[in-house]
This record gives sequence, C-alpha cells and structure tokens, in this order.
Amino acid sequence: MRRPSLTLLAAGLLLASGVASATDTVVPAAAVRTAGQLRDKAMHDDTGYRIAESLTTEVGQRLAGSPADQRGVEWAIAKFKELGFDKVYTEPVTYPKWVRRSESGAIVAPFPQSLMLTALGYSPGTPRGGLTAEVVRFASLDALKNADPASVKGKIVYIGFRMQRHKDGQDYGMGSAIRTQGPVIAQAKGAAGFLLRSAGTDPHSRTPHAGVTGFRDPAKTIPAAALSNPDADQLERVLGYGKPVTVKLDLDCGIEGEYTGANVIGEVTGAKYPDQVVAIGGHLDSWDLGTGAIDDGAGIAIAMAAGKLIHDLPTRPDRTIRVIAFANEEMGLWGGRAYADRHADEVRKFQLGTESDFGSGRIWRMSASVKPEARGAMGQIAKVLAPIGVAYDAKRPGGGGSDLSQMHGKGMAALSLTQDGTHYFDWHHTANDTLDKIDPKDLAQNVAVYAAFSYMAAQAQGDFGSAPGAFANDGAGE
Amino acid sequence: MRRPSLTLLAAGLLLASGVASATDTVVPAAAVRTAGQLRDKAMHDDTGYRIAESLTTEVGQRLAGSPADQRGVEWAIAKFKELGFDKVYTEPVTYPKWVRRSESGAIVAPFPQSLMLTALGYSPGTPRGGLTAEVVRFASLDALKNADPASVKGKIVYIGFRMQRHKDGQDYGMGSAIRTQGPVIAQAKGAAGFLLRSAGTDPHSRTPHAGVTGFRDPAKTIPAAALSNPDADQLERVLGYGKPVTVKLDLDCGIEGEYTGANVIGEVTGAKYPDQVVAIGGHLDSWDLGTGAIDDGAGIAIAMAAGKLIHDLPTRPDRTIRVIAFANEEMGLWGGRAYADRHADEVRKFQLGTESDFGSGRIWRMSASVKPEARGAMGQIAKVLAPIGVAYDAKRPGGGGSDLSQMHGKGMAALSLTQDGTHYFDWHHTANDTLDKIDPKDLAQNVAVYAAFSYMAAQAQGDFGSAPGAFANDGAGE
Repeated sequence: MRRPSLTLLAAGLLLASGVASATDTVVPAAAVRTAGQLRDKAMHDDTGYRIAESLTTEVGQRLAGSPADQRGVEWAIAKFKELGFDKVYTEPVTYPKWVRRSESGAIVAPFPQSLMLTALGYSPGTPRGGLTAEVVRFASLDALKNADPASVKGKIVYIGFRMQRHKDGQDYGMGSAIRTQGPVIAQAKGAAGFLLRSAGTDPHSRTPHAGVTGFRDPAKTIPAAALSNPDADQLERVLGYGKPVTVKLDLDCGIEGEYTGANVIGEVTGAKYPDQVVAIGGHLDSWDLGTGAIDDGAGIAIAMAAGKLIHDLPTRPDRTIRVIAFANEEMGLWGGRAYADRHADEVRKFQLGTESDFGSGRIWRMSASVKPEARGAMGQIAKVLAPIGVAYDAKRPGGGGSDLSQMHGKGMAALSLTQDGTHYFDWHHTANDTLDKIDPKDLAQNVAVYAAFSYMAAQAQGDFGSAPGAFANDGAGE
Repeated sequence: MRRPSLTLLAAGLLLASGVASATDTVVPAAAVRTAGQLRDKAMHDDTGYRIAESLTTEVGQRLAGSPADQRGVEWAIAKFKELGFDKVYTEPVTYPKWVRRSESGAIVAPFPQSLMLTALGYSPGTPRGGLTAEVVRFASLDALKNADPASVKGKIVYIGFRMQRHKDGQDYGMGSAIRTQGPVIAQAKGAAGFLLRSAGTDPHSRTPHAGVTGFRDPAKTIPAAALSNPDADQLERVLGYGKPVTVKLDLDCGIEGEYTGANVIGEVTGAKYPDQVVAIGGHLDSWDLGTGAIDDGAGIAIAMAAGKLIHDLPTRPDRTIRVIAFANEEMGLWGGRAYADRHADEVRKFQLGTESDFGSGRIWRMSASVKPEARGAMGQIAKVLAPIGVAYDAKRPGGGGSDLSQMHGKGMAALSLTQDGTHYFDWHHTANDTLDKIDPKDLAQNVAVYAAFSYMAAQAQGDFGSAPGAFANDGAGE
C-alpha cells in the first residue's frame, strides 16, 4: 500500500539533494527521528555485550553438530524468548558432521620437537600411529598448482603465506584460498598430507587457526592441518638447514554421518506488513578451539540486540524484524544455503537484509545493492549513521554478509556493513576467540547501526528492489 | 699483583669526581677504550641472536631431566667449541625428575566447556579418570591462609590474582608467591586440588603459564595447575552465577626418580690470572611449552656472545671469562645451588659475576654489590654503558641474577643488570616463549653490556670485594 503523494512530500522534506520521484522509496520523517533515537540509545546500551557474554559463558564453543551446537540452539531459543521477541522458531539444517577428537604434530627429523597445529574442517584422521612423511614446501598456491606430481607424491605439502593486518581483512582472500584449495590440489597430486601457515595475522601467537578445506568428496581427502605462525616460522627455519625434514601428524578427526541442526529465528512482528521482513543475523555455530565470541557470538549479539531495541519501542515497526541465528556457517554456509533454498520463492518479501560476521570492530562503511529508486532512502539511512562513523560508499555493492549472501543471491536487496577487521584475523578460528576480544563500546556501535538501519528499512515507504534474480551481477561476491 | 702508583694515576685520569686511594680498584685506560670498542661492535653484531636461533631451532624446549635437556647439554658443549672457547666442561647437577605427559581440564557444571591449563612443577597427577570437585575461590593468598579448613576440604582452591605489566616485572612477586605457596597451603588445609590465574601479563592469550610450586615433600602434594587468563576470566564469570561450579582436572605428570644433568661451562682463559674469573651465564633448561627463547635462551645467548666477542680480541683478557649454562633453574635453582656448593671455597677467585635471566629486553639499570674501594671502577663501567641506555643506581645492591645469586650468597661480588621486562611476563613459561619474541637489536644491546662490563672487570687492577660471607646483608634478595 503505497502513498505516493506523501512519499513525495517526505522526500522533498528529507533529501538535501536530488529530486525524488513518485516511485522512489522514502523513509518517513518520524521514522528517521526514531532511528536517530534508537541509534543514540544503542550507543550507550549493553544489551549486545550481555548477549555475547551469556552465549560464550553459558555455552562456549559451538562446533556444528557437536553437543554444544544443540546447547547453542537451546540457548538461542531461550534468549529470544527472554528478550521478548514475538515469535521464535527453528528451521532444520542438515549437513555432514565433522568431529575433532585429538590432534598433535611434531618435527621428527632433523630436530625433534612438537608443533602446535589444528586439523582443518573435513580433514580425515591420520592412520593409527600417525602419518610421518617428508615435508615439501611451496612458495605459493600457484607454485603448488604448477608442481610436478612426482615432487609431491607421498609427501606433506606445506605453504607458508603470511597474512598481514588490514582494516578490511583483504589478505584473508589468499589465506583462505590456500586453506580451501591447497589440500584439494595436494591430494590430487598424490600428497600424503597438507600443512599451511595459519590464515591469521597473529605472528607471535602459538594458536593455530582452524577453518574449512575445500574437500567435498570423502574419497578424495588427505590429512590437513594449520600450524600456528611461530610453528610455521620454526618449520621454515628447520627447512632452511637444507636437510630432509620429516614431520609426524597425528589427527583423530573426520566425518561421522549426517547431523540435523537448526537455524534459530526470532521475530519482532510488523504491525502493518507482518509478512514483509528486514532480515538480520549472525551465525550461531563456531569453531571449537575458542568460545566463538568474535566469530560469531558478536554477530548474534548485534542482531539480537538490534531486534530487542526495536521491540522495546512504544509501537511495533511496520514490517517484521527477523533475526536469524544461522547453523553451520563455518563448514560451508550450510545454514545460509538451507535458508535461501527454503525461502527463495519469498524473496520479494525480504525488504532488505544483512548479516554481521566479521567480529565486533566498529562499522566504518556501508554499501548497498538496492534498486535505483531506493538510493534516496539509502542516503537517508546513511545520514543517520554518519554521526557514528559510518561512511556510505554508493559505488560499492552490498552483499548481505556470509549466510545472507545466499538470499542476496536469490535477489534480496542487501547491505554490506563493513567492520574494522584490523585485528579480526589475530583471533579468528583460534583458541583466542574469547569474550575479552569484544570491546563493549565497539559492539554497541554495531548494534546502533543495525537497529537504526533495520528500523528505517522496516518503516520505509516503498521497497529496496528485492526480486527473483535481482542484483545477480552486482559484483558483491561475498 | 697490584700496582698502586699506576692505579692512582689511572684513577686520576679517569674519574671525573672523587679521589682514588692507593687501595682502590681501577680499570686501566686501555681496557676502558677496548671495552668501548667491544660495546660498539656488539651493538651491531648478531652472534647473540644466531646463538638463540640455533638453540631454539635445533633443540627447542629443554625441560629439566627430559631427553631434550640432554640434547641441550650436547648443543651447549658443541656451541662453546664452535665459538672457540678455550675450555669447555660440565659439572653434574642432580635433582628430582618431574615429567609432564598430558593435561586437560574442563568446567563440568553448570556450563560444560574445556579449560586451557597447564600442570605446575612438582604437581602430582590426578587419579586415573581425573579429579572432579567443586571450586572454592579466594580473593588472595592471605584469604587462603586465613581460611577455615572446613571451607576448603575436598575442593579445588582457586586464586585469581591479575598481574599487570611493569618495566621491572614487580607483580611477579605476588604472582609467583601464589603459585609456590598457594598449593602448599591448600594441601595443608585438605584441598583436593589447586588452580590459579596464570602468573602472566597476557590478558588476552589462551596460553597458561607453567612454573614451579613450593611442593618439596612428595607425600604432601595435590594436583596443581594454572589457567590461562581468558580461562580464568571464564571460570570467574561462571562462578559469578552463584551456582556450585564443578571442575575436572586430568593431569598425567609427577616426579619420576632422580636425574643427573649438567651445568655446561665455557671459558676464555685469562692470560695473567687464569684462575680468577668473571662469571656470567644463563640457564640452559626451560619450561616445555614453548622453545625457551626468552627464558632463557636469551640469557645463554647473551653470555655466550659476550664471551665470544672477548675471545675474538687480539689478546686474551687478564682474567678468565667463565660462561655458565646452568642446569634446571626452573624447578628451584638446582644448577645454581650445585654450582655454589661446589665452588664456595673459591669465592675470592670470582672477580665479579651476574646472570641474564629476564628475557631479551634492553638493560636500563645497573647496580652492584661490591666493596667500597671498587665503587670507582663501577663508575668507570657505568660510564662505558651509559651511551647505550644503562643508568647506574649506586644505591641499590647487585644480586647476580637467578642461579648466580647463589654464588653471591657465598660472597661473590655481583651486579644486577636490569632488563626492560614490560612484556616478559606476557610469554614467560608459556607456549609463546619462542624466538620471534627476541628483538635482535635489543639482544645485541644486552651482549654489548655483558661484553663491556666483563672485559673491564677482567682487566681491573684490584678486585671487587668477593670474600666468604661478604655482602650477606646487602638486601639483594634475588
């Protein structure tokens, strides 16, 4: 139910530049004011931090398919209810269950000493008694791609790419490419195992970074693990002596059938258009080494707290705020893909969406994939977010975050709310992913951004362009 | 063989203030010049760093009594020889052998999750299947001392003192007191186990800090372990819910008879007074979690490199430079005590001594326990060290460092060369004690200080006051 004349009036009042047409999407002035109040309240509110504290303290790590995964689901249902969400429900997500039982490694020769490492997702275990083989080092993923299989056969392939800290985490592109593709290529060339320098920016910490491999066919796998940065340094120094270097891997891990977990969903039901939704969220699962605070307790906390702040307004928003706690993001977006498959036909009902999954650093940039007629509304959102440090880059697409990228792929209009990830990869997927890494003030800024944009999107007169197949070529590529 | 007239002349030339008497110890002008050249050369020399690299790469951790301890001894003998030391020998050191086989821990209730912890030195293992008991928290060591045994009996005592970073590491006084005395007091009151927040200044690292307890009577021990700082935070948050908290400790460790290791000694033999020695050193053993880089590969490297630089002078020094790589400092100064017991009768032959055992941060302060007549010579040494950032505090005693504190206790004149320990306790006794924590330039400054002071002490006309029982009340108390 559009009201073009009012929209035009509001646009004329609100937009500093540009002329809104009758078909433009506009956020009414009252909603802009309320969003500013939500923003200011959120900046001094600790709801998000208390949610992150509760999740990491009462549940801790939440490896997909583990008993803790189920405890996480129960926690999320209870927390949504405790926060007063109008509707709380789950949707099933089925995936292969990968388990880690134990892991160790050592340089056997020429200088015996232990290595701190962690098995990668979907890695099989080593034979009982471990795998002992010579290490062959490659300078890059390309070097491995180009390697003669004879140089690799029966050996443990090692690649030592060093990630550097960047605000946007850009080196993770290569770091994760090595982790996902490296084991697959090494296996195809006949390697016995695969090691990488962790995809992490903590050069001085003995904490290896877990993460998934690209293994999909269980018949084509080899044991694969990540060394901590100092252990990678050590291995490289030992290799530098020019003698054959033998390493032993002892991994007890692997796939144990299927598991059905759940996306957990809490809604603040829209008063006017309850079936139209603003979709925000994080993923509930985590790696098992830390307690899943920044990845992705923070995302869960940000989205839940934003929903809670909107819930606590005197009246319900026009559209529904849907907070989704996704299952098993870590092993390949299982929750996000299941969600998109289930809801693809409803894509027009998704007003706008994005997920938080890059820690708890402050959001410094917003970008969006929306229809041209919604650019004015994006400008309105940007104006509300600018005072808390968010710059709107109108030239970049918005990808919707990790799991919601899948709904964006179906045509959902989406934002990217880019956080400061300078230190994210210091702790990402490690034992050090614990609550102390979350700065409560930074987290509050994230909640402020999510609450303000979600409310404005929920109140907008007009939509942001969600439609089947929309934005297919926006280059978001998240 | 003193030459008082020359001494007086030299003192008159060299000392800016004060009048030297015929009995004053003086460093000849030529030796002062050579010491300045040694200092300048050492500042740009990487011998020390290469020694630390060699030890940590080729041997790694060197837990006293372990196979790696023996590899460390063999490394030290070979390294002294490779560096060209004139005399290389060992002296036996016998001590109880403590072994660590495996360790794990977890909060069992109310919120099950694993804890990162490490068993403390001389801790016994838990019964097979682990020790599960309720945790009782004390705010301080004093609170535990004053506790009613009924409140402790059968429980796991926990103390959560938080060390802060200080240049002089002052909080380690309380941190190590809790680690050594806490388990003994808890055992005496009937506790089942003991946990502490690690004695470390790394609030965000999941690396527990090992270290020795005060257990001496194997019949009076209980399992004792340190939690990493984030794990201590977690335990405290869980305790904060006000429900009974049950923890399980599963430690496989304990004393396995006796072991005889060795102090390894390399000497640059004095040309005039070969039986008079300047004693410097570090300890060769380390904890087993890291590779013993800052504790105390750095000390070994500093002392060996200083000796090597003096060795490489065109002529041998007047007195012998004795570099001692001590055995088993970590479990209670075993190497230092054995050394002092063996050499107590020769204390007058020890011209001056000190050990490096506080990492690789720059030396910023020198103090000394020497006879009054050697204060002028100390001023000469101070003048050579001032340009590289060392301030001489003439009011403080010198303790000789960790193991050599024992020779100082017998009457050896001693220095304290205080390093910047701001970050020392971030890594001390943890898996993070690895080579990357050593800054080569900082290490070189240490070598410069050790080379310059050692050479000047070796060339001094006169002694520094070593005598049986001298300095007994100097308050060094190291």
